[in-house]
Amino acid sequence: MTLPTIMFEHVVRAALLEDLGRAGDLTTMATVPADHTGAVALVAREPGVVAGTAAAALAWQLLDPGLAVDIVLPDGSTVEPGAVIGTVSGPTRGILTGERVALNLLGHLSGVASCTASLVRETTGTRAAICCTRKTTPGLRALEKAAVVAGGGVNHRFGLDDAILIKDNHVAFAGSVTQAVARARAVAGHMVKVEVEVDTLDQLRELLTTPADAVLLDNMDPATLTEAVELVGGRMITEASGRISAGTVRAVAETGVDLISVGWVTHSAPVLDIGLDARG
Amino acid sequence: MTLPTIMFEHVVRAALLEDLGRAGDLTTMATVPADHTGAVALVAREPGVVAGTAAAALAWQLLDPGLAVDIVLPDGSTVEPGAVIGTVSGPTRGILTGERVALNLLGHLSGVASCTASLVRETTGTRAAICCTRKTTPGLRALEKAAVVAGGGVNHRFGLDDAILIKDNHVAFAGSVTQAVARARAVAGHMVKVEVEVDTLDQLRELLTTPADAVLLDNMDPATLTEAVELVGGRMITEASGRISAGTVRAVAETGVDLISVGWVTHSAPVLDIGLDARG
Amino acid sequence: MTLPTIMFEHVVRAALLEDLGRAGDLTTMATVPADHTGAVALVAREPGVVAGTAAAALAWQLLDPGLAVDIVLPDGSTVEPGAVIGTVSGPTRGILTGERVALNLLGHLSGVASCTASLVRETTGTRAAICCTRKTTPGLRALEKAAVVAGGGVNHRFGLDDAILIKDNHVAFAGSVTQAVARARAVAGHMVKVEVEVDTLDQLRELLTTPADAVLLDNMDPATLTEAVELVGGRMITEASGRISAGTVRAVAETGVDLISVGWVTHSAPVLDIGLDARG
Amino acid sequence: MTLPTIMFEHVVRAALLEDLGRAGDLTTMATVPADHTGAVALVAREPGVVAGTAAAALAWQLLDPGLAVDIVLPDGSTVEPGAVIGTVSGPTRGILTGERVALNLLGHLSGVASCTASLVRETTGTRAAICCTRKTTPGLRALEKAAVVAGGGVNHRFGLDDAILIKDNHVAFAGSVTQAVARARAVAGHMVKVEVEVDTLDQLRELLTTPADAVLLDNMDPATLTEAVELVGGRMITEASGRISAGTVRAVAETGVDLISVGWVTHSAPVLDIGLDARG
Amino acid sequence: MTLPTIMFEHVVRAALLEDLGRAGDLTTMATVPADHTGAVALVAREPGVVAGTAAAALAWQLLDPGLAVDIVLPDGSTVEPGAVIGTVSGPTRGILTGERVALNLLGHLSGVASCTASLVRETTGTRAAICCTRKTTPGLRALEKAAVVAGGGVNHRFGLDDAILIKDNHVAFAGSVTQAVARARAVAGHMVKVEVEVDTLDQLRELLTTPADAVLLDNMDPATLTEAVELVGGRMITEASGRISAGTVRAVAETGVDLISVGWVTHSAPVLDIGLDARG
Amino acid sequence: MTLPTIMFEHVVRAALLEDLGRAGDLTTMATVPADHTGAVALVAREPGVVAGTAAAALAWQLLDPGLAVDIVLPDGSTVEPGAVIGTVSGPTRGILTGERVALNLLGHLSGVASCTASLVRETTGTRAAICCTRKTTPGLRALEKAAVVAGGGVNHRFGLDDAILIKDNHVAFAGSVTQAVARARAVAGHMVKVEVEVDTLDQLRELLTTPADAVLLDNMDPATLTEAVELVGGRMITEASGRISAGTVRAVAETGVDLISVGWVTHSAPVLDIGLDARG
Repeated sequence: MTLPTIMFEHVVRAALLEDLGRAGDLTTMATVPADHTGAVALVAREPGVVAGTAAAALAWQLLDPGLAVDIVLPDGSTVEPGAVIGTVSGPTRGILTGERVALNLLGHLSGVASCTASLVRETTGTRAAICCTRKTTPGLRALEKAAVVAGGGVNHRFGLDDAILIKDNHVAFAGSVTQAVARARAVAGHMVKVEVEVDTLDQLRELLTTPADAVLLDNMDPATLTEAVELVGGRMITEASGRISAGTVRAVAETGVDLISVGWVTHSAPVLDIGLDARG
Repeated sequence: MTLPTIMFEHVVRAALLEDLGRAGDLTTMATVPADHTGAVALVAREPGVVAGTAAAALAWQLLDPGLAVDIVLPDGSTVEPGAVIGTVSGPTRGILTGERVALNLLGHLSGVASCTASLVRETTGTRAAICCTRKTTPGLRALEKAAVVAGGGVNHRFGLDDAILIKDNHVAFAGSVTQAVARARAVAGHMVKVEVEVDTLDQLRELLTTPADAVLLDNMDPATLTEAVELVGGRMITEASGRISAGTVRAVAETGVDLISVGWVTHSAPVLDIGLDARG
Repeated sequence: MTLPTIMFEHVVRAALLEDLGRAGDLTTMATVPADHTGAVALVAREPGVVAGTAAAALAWQLLDPGLAVDIVLPDGSTVEPGAVIGTVSGPTRGILTGERVALNLLGHLSGVASCTASLVRETTGTRAAICCTRKTTPGLRALEKAAVVAGGGVNHRFGLDDAILIKDNHVAFAGSVTQAVARARAVAGHMVKVEVEVDTLDQLRELLTTPADAVLLDNMDPATLTEAVELVGGRMITEASGRISAGTVRAVAETGVDLISVGWVTHSAPVLDIGLDARG
Repeated sequence: MTLPTIMFEHVVRAALLEDLGRAGDLTTMATVPADHTGAVALVAREPGVVAGTAAAALAWQLLDPGLAVDIVLPDGSTVEPGAVIGTVSGPTRGILTGERVALNLLGHLSGVASCTASLVRETTGTRAAICCTRKTTPGLRALEKAAVVAGGGVNHRFGLDDAILIKDNHVAFAGSVTQAVARARAVAGHMVKVEVEVDTLDQLRELLTTPADAVLLDNMDPATLTEAVELVGGRMITEASGRISAGTVRAVAETGVDLISVGWVTHSAPVLDIGLDARG
Repeated sequence: MTLPTIMFEHVVRAALLEDLGRAGDLTTMATVPADHTGAVALVAREPGVVAGTAAAALAWQLLDPGLAVDIVLPDGSTVEPGAVIGTVSGPTRGILTGERVALNLLGHLSGVASCTASLVRETTGTRAAICCTRKTTPGLRALEKAAVVAGGGVNHRFGLDDAILIKDNHVAFAGSVTQAVARARAVAGHMVKVEVEVDTLDQLRELLTTPADAVLLDNMDPATLTEAVELVGGRMITEASGRISAGTVRAVAETGVDLISVGWVTHSAPVLDIGLDARG
Repeated sequence: MTLPTIMFEHVVRAALLEDLGRAGDLTTMATVPADHTGAVALVAREPGVVAGTAAAALAWQLLDPGLAVDIVLPDGSTVEPGAVIGTVSGPTRGILTGERVALNLLGHLSGVASCTASLVRETTGTRAAICCTRKTTPGLRALEKAAVVAGGGVNHRFGLDDAILIKDNHVAFAGSVTQAVARARAVAGHMVKVEVEVDTLDQLRELLTTPADAVLLDNMDPATLTEAVELVGGRMITEASGRISAGTVRAVAETGVDLISVGWVTHSAPVLDIGLDARG
């Protein structure tokens, strides 16, 4: 999924201005001649999956349209240490001044993709897809969601408005699961899906009397999840959540759930280490 | 350091709009009466240091000025699981609709503070301060830098324009360390400090013939760092950097360096788990 | 559905600045004393349904926080000529300067609500809901979609990203309806619904081999629609579209379709005539 | 009058982002190959006058600079059903993703031009020009005013600040028409024209003792208007207003007024139906 | 003329962010306790006329809504050294942090007002008004134009769009003055005035065959201006321009022209020296 | 120092929109054919130093990408009357419409550079550099600071956040100069310099017990300054300030201070007169 540039240009522009401040790159302007040109390669320093290449490229292009950025390993590519993701060539000042912003974007988004990919690998052979949440970095949701897809995962809703997720406090206000779902269906358009979060099999049984589109099985152990999946019997999409780690994800996946949603692939992913190496 | 609200309002506003999308919080509007009021507590689920409380509070206040947010553990507070950081009271719809944005901000910034604090603890009794870098999340630099201070760390430069940091490629263009420093001093105002990165003791010795304000000792082992600190002899501020982890930071600190700069406290800090508990 | 103010503040602010220009309200500043206060009523001049009251109120409040706006007939209220929708009181300059922007917002959005309501009335007693499209005024989609709901209608998707709608050219690229739906499901998250547009019963039959969540029955006459609804047999949500007017909507509704989508309630709705009358 | 792109770029950009949301065009990304190219024609489906071609073209160009948009019937062209207004060629994804935003702009602005043109036709042979008001769609004033010109009409003031229009409540505050005009002249610069609204011939006679630049003859029947025009005797520009419809406009025009101002050409114009047809 | 705050809020906000940067007021945060409160007076250090008080006040209020700003000498007041223009009281940090931005706005705009006032004084007793141009500081036009009015001057057009000013190159393209005026009248609405610039009496005579609303008599000496005014004989507003200084303005005014336009009151006005004095 | 375009694009864009308003350049659209092309030269009308060429060029390029702007005398060039700074060629409408905005930028910034250069000339042969302050025009700080450098001066801090400047009221709160400096060092990062303002030699002596990075010697006469410089003895950078004019600057420079800071080169610089001459 390649997003149109217009969708993330404001993020890149803000990041550049945040770094340039009011005086620009003093060090580079002081030491590098304005007419010097060069080339560098974007090189992975550790294994992972690449994401955010378009945003990184845009950082250099917004800074100096004279810079040519050539991405050879697009979003979703698996890399080993030393892999060349792309090259940047043109005025050296621009290359150096844009380096940090470009790498901050590329490293963070590749980190999200790589975390996602590690969970996807753990669950190979099961029906479970790895899914992200709304626990994203403020301002970066669209880019992080795309990075999850680059890592082989799938997206949960993008905001409060494109799908309904009924949690326990919503149920409490509505009076019952049945009433909460009915109210949700009445308010939302026909193209909006409704999911309900349940913590127990009893809640699940109540929900099954008037099923939603999906059910979020929260904080259940594998045995309970297995029973839940059986109870649902394909009548709703099943999603497991609740502090699922790399160590526990396989067991969860083997319960037969359709999706496993994990907040930390967006909110706590360490960067993927990517650096610049001089070229010729 | 309490930043004026005007400095981070655009970040919070963008995060809210990103989550509200074009239709708003469908679930809450469908299930919670518009006139219902309530109160919740912001509760730490794990030990750490709090940061970002003003941004989190602002999320609720921008969403509904009728919400009262009372922070009792300000930025910099150490928390244990169960600690109440503050309370939010008023229209329930606003509390629920703002929850995710507020927690995304609070959790991420408290994560940065907590990582910083863990390194500060490791280096207790040494002269070394823990320092952050420009490896920050795009758009969040001012807030993350403030979170580092909340965690007991100190700030390196905020951008390319408020201090000069001469790296090897800048030196290469200038011809020598001496010339690079001279050019930097000629370009920058008298209120701008100059730091030079060196990888070897030989480079350090060259730099000491015309010292800068600070020296970045990059990727040196503790023994070399100790020798470097001795060579400098107080003529420059000394800063160590290069993949320093919680496990190695104490050994680095004991070399006598003034600062230890660590990128991962901003670029790879996992969130601090903070949640909402219903109140009365 | 009351949207948080933050969601439409930028629209109102832009409308005010567009009207104030660079010199402000010359006429009022020249003729009305700065300290004069007064009150006016928002009065319907023709029958219809009200929408956009919050945006209209915000126009006055952004212009002068000293103005009190009291809405007594909220969005969704049916009005007859002479009905008082609300009152504005405070500094007279602010009342006069904000009048046009407030009325432009209120009149346009009430026009959308009133058109929708007129179709809803025509279809009373049928199962068909009146639904809007993405044919909205640039920049006003969220407000217009809320106005449709105020008029008793329902919302189709809010953009290209919150639901999938496969049209004939998408099918052509994918090779077949079945493949198009499969690709859509593979790309979109599990909370995204998929609708397919069909023009003929043959296309519908092909779709029914692997049903989507909804089917858009485009440009079919009532007889064909009736047959289509029977063919679907409740396995998909059915939506009729294609130049449906006030004169033809009842016949369409009586075919048994779930939804009737109409572009002109947003793109061609005349304003509802609402004016200001002096008070006291 | 061709406006510089910079004057309406923000409108088009906002409309695109409003439609793309946070995930982009899911349907097109799922079904259309990224490297496929094609061409479409913008085709009128009903008779009218074209306006907004530059804004529509910009929608595609902002979305994908690789798209070529060739407008063959510029703003102001009269079209019959089937007329090709222009063509768009290049990456198919961009064509499809930009379609709705481009057509929303083109259809709305052509609707404004077409309504204006229909009144212009009705008044052929009279001295009366058709004039718009400040009753425009929030955010679209500059584009709608240009569309009125494309339709053969003329523009009244663009905001509260570029001309003075004294209405009855302003007169009430100033004490008399004479005093209101005097105050207006004292406040406004010498390049600002002053118009006064009158409802009766008595008010007009008072105004004629110290004429303004123009007089707005509000809600007068043709006989009264004729008398008013005679009374003015060329000493002021005469403008008629007040619920003038296609059916009544000719009678008004034949009274000899210089201008007839009509709010509904901007606030209630239905879209002109324009669609895309595949090419080659 | 008091402009609504919404018209200049963006200017003040940008000025504050420009000064606060990414780290805020380090000095004040380091030395002044957060809970300390105080009061200061805005004091004129030299004679002049005040303007920009609302913008200066807003700087403090945006920074800290807890600050109370009380303006006692409003825009347009003549001040002598020592005059107290207003007071600011509340949190000391806010007072100090906002000081420079507030004074930059107040000093610059009061400088514009004071320069204008000095010319107004020079021309006392003549019919000539002092008028500004479009030679304003980028971004500050609305505020500077208001400052000119505060200084007793009047405003020429605010932009390229609210009045027509035909210069020699426009005449050259149109073929003749008569044709240029005719084309201008055809394009502009009836509420737009037309002025023509002439350099010689011959050009003026040509213009008088079909007079515009105003004539700009450019770079004429007093004798020629006197003759020009006689030639016009009240049929057009007369405006003199061209490097008119404090020393020459009276002679120009005594020629009988209606207006004297001077670019330097906006583009070259030195600040009026205004400072803060501690209070109690 | 050539700033990246992205750093000042928003200033130029705002200036253009401020001038174009809602209707664009009526005069030019009315009189100049859309397809006419031409060329003009930017010509100095008085001696000075050029600055702001990139911003002026951008004004034309943003307005019409078809315009070619060729700067032959870059920022920092000394010009005499008649000197051609650059040329603009392409569509004549664009040249004329952009003229005022481009010249407003170029004239103002060249004015700043020229004032600075005049002081630099006065101090030839001394060690003193001419330095600007934070007394800049709201919104233009980065461009004005660059213009100071173009004029041969140097930059003081760019905002409240990139250096610490302790004034008397800060000292009062901290208790003593020593404590104020200590607190500043504790709060600011190691890359932030600290300067202290002193009014008397006694204060200077106190400061010298624990020197800062720089000292601001405020409002001292040359004799006192000379003594101050001797007292400092190279232990701090010395900066003189306080109403220093072209007439007094040499005497100040000869005291041996390192820097002379002058607010009026930014806040009160008259424009440098630069105009457009037709070419070929």
